[in-house]
Amino acid sequence: MNVDPIGVIRTPFRAKDGCPIQPLYAGDALGMVEVFEEFSAGLKDIELFTHIFLIYAFDRAGAVELVRPTFLDDEPHGVFASRHPCRPNGIGLSIVELVERSGCALTVRGIDVLDETPLLDIKPYIHRFDAIDDANDGWVTGLELRDKPAGRE
Amino acid sequence: MNVDPIGVIRTPFRAKDGCPIQPLYAGDALGMVEVFEEFSAGLKDIELFTHIFLIYAFDRAGAVELVRPTFLDDEPHGVFASRHPCRPNGIGLSIVELVERSGCALTVRGIDVLDETPLLDIKPYIHRFDAIDDANDGWVTGLELRDKPAGRE
Repeated sequence: MNVDPIGVIRTPFRAKDGCPIQPLYAGDALGMVEVFEEFSAGLKDIELFTHIFLIYAFDRAGAVELVRPTFLDDEPHGVFASRHPCRPNGIGLSIVELVERSGCALTVRGIDVLDETPLLDIKPYIHRFDAIDDANDGWVTGLELRDKPAGRE
Repeated sequence: MNVDPIGVIRTPFRAKDGCPIQPLYAGDALGMVEVFEEFSAGLKDIELFTHIFLIYAFDRAGAVELVRPTFLDDEPHGVFASRHPCRPNGIGLSIVELVERSGCALTVRGIDVLDETPLLDIKPYIHRFDAIDDANDGWVTGLELRDKPAGRE
């Protein structure tokens, strides 16, 4: 299946080092999601949501590694049990706060992707469907961000 | 960008009519996520998570419609403000409960996709990152599933 960008994500993060690994660690980092004009009609009512899923291409990921250490610890984990970019299909997923919409441009808070990341889709984050209270943290339980994350590679 | 299936999702839902529109409405529907053998190493530690994201292809969606009524109401909404399958890149996203892993096969609960749906990626749902307490429901607020949803078309 072929997928083509519907827009671009602009962020303060030009390099893998320094790019947050999850929106939670991105703090107040603001980004701009620019949807191409031809798709602008698809944004109708997006501004009613406080949070959205961004689906994008990991266009600067390294080679696929099915098992590897992660940003959070040195233990090897399967790539499907992690959010690491080096996956068979380089599709990324982030949940961000939607701060403002201005035409085709969405200002978002808590962005954790590299500048100029190709946007593939936007979906609304719907609290009723998506905030799963009884979900756990799996192997991430109790792990905190390390002082020197390994960077995007 | 080209994406290729890493597996297949098997569910009780053979037709669009009768297929739940969200895992919340799928109740206890069980499905089987079968990851192709060549990617099995990538599943290491997936069983530590109670919930996972499934990313898959809407392989039987109709033509793209940027604005259209949804399963939940008759008001037209932008496709990026809905989870409807008729989107520019036919990428679907569901959060399901991971019941059991047996080798390359994952039994999941609350599945809402058609049988034989091509699987593109699995990511862990991590409560700390993904359960956003202060997210809202946008235009979905207060809407309940209708007796006769419009089906997948």
